[in-house]
Amino acid sequence: MFELHPTLEKDSLPAAETDGLLIRLVNDARFPWLLIVPKVDGITELHELTDAQYADAMGMARSLGAALKTAFGADKINTAALGNMVPQLHIHLVVRTKGDDAWPGPVWGVGAMVPMSDEEATYRIGLIRRNLP
Amino acid sequence: MFELHPTLEKDSLPAAETDGLLIRLVNDARFPWLLIVPKVDGITELHELTDAQYADAMGMARSLGAALKTAFGADKINTAALGNMVPQLHIHLVVRTKGDDAWPGPVWGVGAMVPMSDEEATYRIGLIRRNLP
Repeated sequence: MFELHPTLEKDSLPAAETDGLLIRLVNDARFPWLLIVPKVDGITELHELTDAQYADAMGMARSLGAALKTAFGADKINTAALGNMVPQLHIHLVVRTKGDDAWPGPVWGVGAMVPMSDEEATYRIGLIRRNLP
Repeated sequence: MFELHPTLEKDSLPAAETDGLLIRLVNDARFPWLLIVPKVDGITELHELTDAQYADAMGMARSLGAALKTAFGADKINTAALGNMVPQLHIHLVVRTKGDDAWPGPVWGVGAMVPMSDEEATYRIGLIRRNLP
């Protein structure tokens, strides 16, 4: 039974799930920001995924990145697997717009997260679900 | 004829090349930091790569990430496609060690790059070449 790391659990809302992946929406009104979490226990690096798991996770990143760039009318997708702070492997997919609160820098460690309203969370989760591959 | 973006050209040294990819070493002594640049003109996003190009680029990231984590005795690999400043698609592969100059934050925008000595550059490029898939 896969368990999401408590920090990821606390910082994000469930948006979607597939056989192999959890898709979470980071609770930050400043940016549409997803986490793609392979349901694989005890790994920290992309290269620890099997070929099939890697194709599954990166295929989701690619597909959602393309769809959400259009859906949100955004300027850039930022895709990253960092994990220096939370070791459980997770892939960030951040929908960036020129002039957003961190532009043109990366979003990590910039200011404090701004919780979404219920309406904003519902809107974003709806867009994610409608744009799943 | 593919042309590397002048900012990437200025900030990095040639380390290796395959049919589809340039592998560059960022000229920063603080971190072993590679750029994987698909030789595809005019694209800015991972999802603009064809299936084959995507598999090629991400396969290189995965393979070099695994090998260089071991070769450098590192703690974490950071893999990211950002491109908010330099639009030409490039994938960062950063070899991170606990306590390095940006740990545990990301490396982008942290302080000034510290040019490598010739010995350091030669050493890192040698490790990259010996660890190509």
